[in-house]
Amino acid sequence: MSNPTAAMLVIGDEILSGRTRDANMYHLAGQLTNAGIDLTEVRVVSDDKDAIIAAVQTLSGAYDVVFTSGGIGPTHDDITADCIAAAFGVAIDVRDDARAILQARYDAAGTEMNAARLRMARIPAGATLIDNPVSGAPGFTVENVHVMAGVPSVFVAMVESVLPTLAGGAPLVSETLRIERGEGEIAGPLGALAAEYPMLSMGSYPFTQKDGGYGANIVIRGVDADLVRRAHDQLAAIFPA
Amino acid sequence: MSNPTAAMLVIGDEILSGRTRDANMYHLAGQLTNAGIDLTEVRVVSDDKDAIIAAVQTLSGAYDVVFTSGGIGPTHDDITADCIAAAFGVAIDVRDDARAILQARYDAAGTEMNAARLRMARIPAGATLIDNPVSGAPGFTVENVHVMAGVPSVFVAMVESVLPTLAGGAPLVSETLRIERGEGEIAGPLGALAAEYPMLSMGSYPFTQKDGGYGANIVIRGVDADLVRRAHDQLAAIFPA
Repeated sequence: MSNPTAAMLVIGDEILSGRTRDANMYHLAGQLTNAGIDLTEVRVVSDDKDAIIAAVQTLSGAYDVVFTSGGIGPTHDDITADCIAAAFGVAIDVRDDARAILQARYDAAGTEMNAARLRMARIPAGATLIDNPVSGAPGFTVENVHVMAGVPSVFVAMVESVLPTLAGGAPLVSETLRIERGEGEIAGPLGALAAEYPMLSMGSYPFTQKDGGYGANIVIRGVDADLVRRAHDQLAAIFPA
Repeated sequence: MSNPTAAMLVIGDEILSGRTRDANMYHLAGQLTNAGIDLTEVRVVSDDKDAIIAAVQTLSGAYDVVFTSGGIGPTHDDITADCIAAAFGVAIDVRDDARAILQARYDAAGTEMNAARLRMARIPAGATLIDNPVSGAPGFTVENVHVMAGVPSVFVAMVESVLPTLAGGAPLVSETLRIERGEGEIAGPLGALAAEYPMLSMGSYPFTQKDGGYGANIVIRGVDADLVRRAHDQLAAIFPA
């Protein structure tokens, strides 16, 4: 049985303009690998209603589970919740339980609720809330789409809230062999090894050494730890340190 | 007249598994913004032939220019060149000029050409080569798709080779105002300002201060520097430091 598949949708002009370097994709990718869920595609789109709706519909239909990041704050450019509602053809309005969570936070902080803050309690009909222990304002899940904040500390907390609810597969085991030779020398024997172990994936990630020499990290991945180890040892015997 | 649009396709299991944190998207995004080209969508796909071909065809049809990153080295998991040829329905074979570039590098370094290294001279028919001053092996352009290496230092060099050949638009000017208040307080006046300046884009990027207080960087972008400055000053008057 193969692992569940996942996609991520990053929503935000700030990534596409180069202003902000994405951190959430990297975090989610590692968490899903540990959980035995295969992150298969990521898309980054701008704060554009049509682009967000189309991407949500495509990814939700193509993968077992989808995670979105960004666009659920109180400002005018936060349009993700409305787009999710539109993508699934459901209504959206302020929901009492979400409003109560926000109100409790603001009361504790001595902050006033206002129209902008109340926007963060607008939840598509039928959604399940995602707990946000960092700043209160919840994310939410509609069908197989988990809608989370773009602020990295909040994103991390929401992933923690969601992951235990998902059925994972067999976590991948990996072994890395560092070989201080050019990829051009490694490629032949590595290709033969990959053909010998069709149930493992073998990736070659080249680097340049400080002295200008070439090398590559060969990463062998699979669900069977013994097999991964055997392939690793076989390659290490061909390229002794 | 609006700016040219661009998309990026990142190819590589190592990003999706969380092993490697992407650097090329961040770099390209900044370079394109400076050049007046709007990066509108990014996709990350795994080393999967069908996924790569489908993404290349979709993005090439939807945007003025496409940049790919990754999968053009000598190892068995480097399948990008074949996928590009398949996506455009053209043949692919070792090309003499690409082979000569590699041969000259290997001769200078005292390295042997072999079957794996020769793979890097396989170029889709009709492509234009992209110069790689870092490690020799060229990228290439087919129609509106620029195919570049995933190794960050090589990617950066190839972007430098390609960018001067592209027609850009008006570069965006931006002004950032740091406001040490919660987004919930900023959102109302900011929304009104955004409505007053429909030709500018205004983004709100919240942060948490070390003392636990909230704040946001408000980024105002547009092609008219005077207008951007005027909107910035108007916002600064509402939220004095």
